[in-house]
Amino acid sequence: MSEMLKIHPPYLLFVGDVDDEVVAKTGFGIAEWRRDDCVGQMRLPGCGVDLGLPDVTLEEAVKAGARTLIVGVAPAGGALPVSWIAALLAALEAGLDIASGLHTRIAAIPNLRQTADELGRKIIDVRQSTRTFPVGTGLKRPGKRLLTVGTDSAVGKKYTALSIHAALRRRGLPATFRATGQTGILIGGGGIAVDAVIADFISGAAETLSPAAAAEHWDVIEGQGCLLHPAYAGVSLGLLFGSQPDVFVVCHEPTRRALASFTQPVPAIHDIIELTIRMGRQTNPKIRCIGASINTAKLEIARARDLLSEFEHQLGVPCTDPIRFGVDTILDALP
Amino acid sequence: MSEMLKIHPPYLLFVGDVDDEVVAKTGFGIAEWRRDDCVGQMRLPGCGVDLGLPDVTLEEAVKAGARTLIVGVAPAGGALPVSWIAALLAALEAGLDIASGLHTRIAAIPNLRQTADELGRKIIDVRQSTRTFPVGTGLKRPGKRLLTVGTDSAVGKKYTALSIHAALRRRGLPATFRATGQTGILIGGGGIAVDAVIADFISGAAETLSPAAAAEHWDVIEGQGCLLHPAYAGVSLGLLFGSQPDVFVVCHEPTRRALASFTQPVPAIHDIIELTIRMGRQTNPKIRCIGASINTAKLEIARARDLLSEFEHQLGVPCTDPIRFGVDTILDALP
Repeated sequence: MSEMLKIHPPYLLFVGDVDDEVVAKTGFGIAEWRRDDCVGQMRLPGCGVDLGLPDVTLEEAVKAGARTLIVGVAPAGGALPVSWIAALLAALEAGLDIASGLHTRIAAIPNLRQTADELGRKIIDVRQSTRTFPVGTGLKRPGKRLLTVGTDSAVGKKYTALSIHAALRRRGLPATFRATGQTGILIGGGGIAVDAVIADFISGAAETLSPAAAAEHWDVIEGQGCLLHPAYAGVSLGLLFGSQPDVFVVCHEPTRRALASFTQPVPAIHDIIELTIRMGRQTNPKIRCIGASINTAKLEIARARDLLSEFEHQLGVPCTDPIRFGVDTILDALP
Repeated sequence: MSEMLKIHPPYLLFVGDVDDEVVAKTGFGIAEWRRDDCVGQMRLPGCGVDLGLPDVTLEEAVKAGARTLIVGVAPAGGALPVSWIAALLAALEAGLDIASGLHTRIAAIPNLRQTADELGRKIIDVRQSTRTFPVGTGLKRPGKRLLTVGTDSAVGKKYTALSIHAALRRRGLPATFRATGQTGILIGGGGIAVDAVIADFISGAAETLSPAAAAEHWDVIEGQGCLLHPAYAGVSLGLLFGSQPDVFVVCHEPTRRALASFTQPVPAIHDIIELTIRMGRQTNPKIRCIGASINTAKLEIARARDLLSEFEHQLGVPCTDPIRFGVDTILDALP
C-alpha cells in the first residue's frame, strides 16, 4: 500500500438521501475547499440537502472527467441503506473509485469489494488504518512546518490550516496542506488519519505525513485534539512531536465553557501556547506561536473585534477569525 | 472478546531452541515473578538457555495442572521455526492454551489456528489488539492508583511496579498489578498492551485497564515510554491521563546519556517529575511524586548509595534501587 492515502480528483460528491446538513458537513467542506475539483453532486430521491453543485448522473460525471466518488455524508444509524449500495456499485461499474470517511467500512461490503476487485477500482476508507508506519525518530527534517493546535476538539484547526494554506498559495509561496482527519483527507485528497494509527506509531505517522521538503516549502498541518484533553491528548502530543513545527497557530472557541462532549473546562489559551512551546521544543527547539485563530461565529461582529483585540493584547500575537477577517495578519508574522 | 486479556495459570514456559538469554527475557521475567505459577520449562534440542525451572514434557506439565503454554522467547529473525510449530501444535493437543508476546501472530498460523478452534483452546497474542475500547472520559474513579513513569524506555518501570505491587501484598494491602506491555501482561496474567491500541483510545484503554475499585485498593500500573520521548510520548501521555494516578514513581537510569535506540539526550528526572504533575493534574488534581526508582546496576554499590542520597537531596522524595535496596522507603511514603 502507498505511504499515504491518495484520492484522485476530479470528484463526484455523493449525498445519498440525507436531509440534515450537519451529517453532510464533509460534503460541504469539499464543495467549499475543492470546488474546482468537483464535477457535481449526486443525490438520491428524497435527499433534502444541496451542496450547491450541479446535479449530475454517473455518466455525466465520468464524461466530465470524474475519477472518484466521495461519500460526503453519514447515513442515519450508521448502516448503509440498500439504495446507497446500489448507487455505489453503479459508480464502480461506471469507472469511478470510491472514497469514504464513514465509520462503516465500505470495502468490507462484499459485493462492493468484489466488484472493485474485478474492475480494478479502488475503495478508500479514510478512517481505516491498515497501514504500518515506522516509529518516529524526532530528527529534524528540512522544510518549514506550521501546525494548528487547539484548546479543544472542533475549534477550527482544520479550517484554519486550510485558510493559511490557501493564503500562502495566493501569495505564491510553496505550501502543502497536510490532513490528519477524515474530513481533511477528503478535502485535501490525501493525508493520514493520525487518530486511527496504532498508538506506538503516532509520531512516526506524523513524520511520514510531512516528509523532508525544500527549505522554503511550508507544510501546513491540520492539528487534532488538545494537549490537555482527557481522551485525545496522546494523539495531540504524538502529532506535535512528529510534526516538529517551526510555528503554530492556536485555535479557540471563546464561548465554549466545557470541552465538546466532555464535562471538563476548556483550558486557557495561554496555557496551551506555553505547553505547546515547552513540549514542542523537544523536537524543534525554535518552535514559537505566531497567532491565534478565534472562532467568533457566535458573537456579534463588534464584540468579535473587541475580543480579538483583547486576545492580541493578552497573547502578544496576531489574533483573527479566519472566516470573518482572513489570515493575512498571521501570514505577515511568518518567518 | 473479554474486556481485558486473561491468561490462565499455571504456566508451562516454552523456551524453544534459543541460546541467547536476552531473547528469553520474557521467560526469565515470568520465572522470577510468577515462580509459584510455573510448573516447568520446555526446551527443544539445542536450547542453550535455562530459566532455572524443572524440564517437563507436555504430559508432565498437564498432569501438574498447567493450563497455558507461554512462549517466553523470540525466535531469531522473527519467523517461527517448523520445530516450534510442531511443539505448539502438540501443546494444544495436550490440552493447553497458548500465550505469546511475539511480534509474529501465533493465531495467524493456519494449522495452529485450526487446531485451537477444533479443540476449543485459546491462542492469546498479547501484542495484537483486535479489541475496541471506549474513548476516555477523564472522570475520577474510586480506588487508589500508582503509576510508574520514566525518563526513557527500558529504565525499570515494569520491574518497579511489580516490586511495589509485591511489597504492598506482603504488607497485607489490597493491590493489583496492571500490565501495559507484552512482558508485563505475560508476567501479570492479564492487562492491555496500550502501545498497540488505536491512538484515539489510549486513555480509554487505560481507564478500562484500571476500573473503579474499593477506596483503599491500589492499582499499581506499569508505565510506558516517557512524556518527552520523540516517538512514544503520545502513549505515555494517554496512559497518564487514563490512569489518573494519585501518586507516581519516576524511574531513571543514571548512566544513560542518550535515549535507548535514539540520539536525543535523556531528559532530567526533575523535568519529568514536574511535567508529570503539571499534565497529570488534568485528570487527578492531587497527583504527586512519592519516589524515584534509580537503576544502579552499572554502578559499584558504594557509588550507588551516594547517588541515591544525592537524588533524595535534589528531589525531596525517597530514592531507591528496587533490585538492590527494595521499595520499602517508597511504600512508607504512600498516602
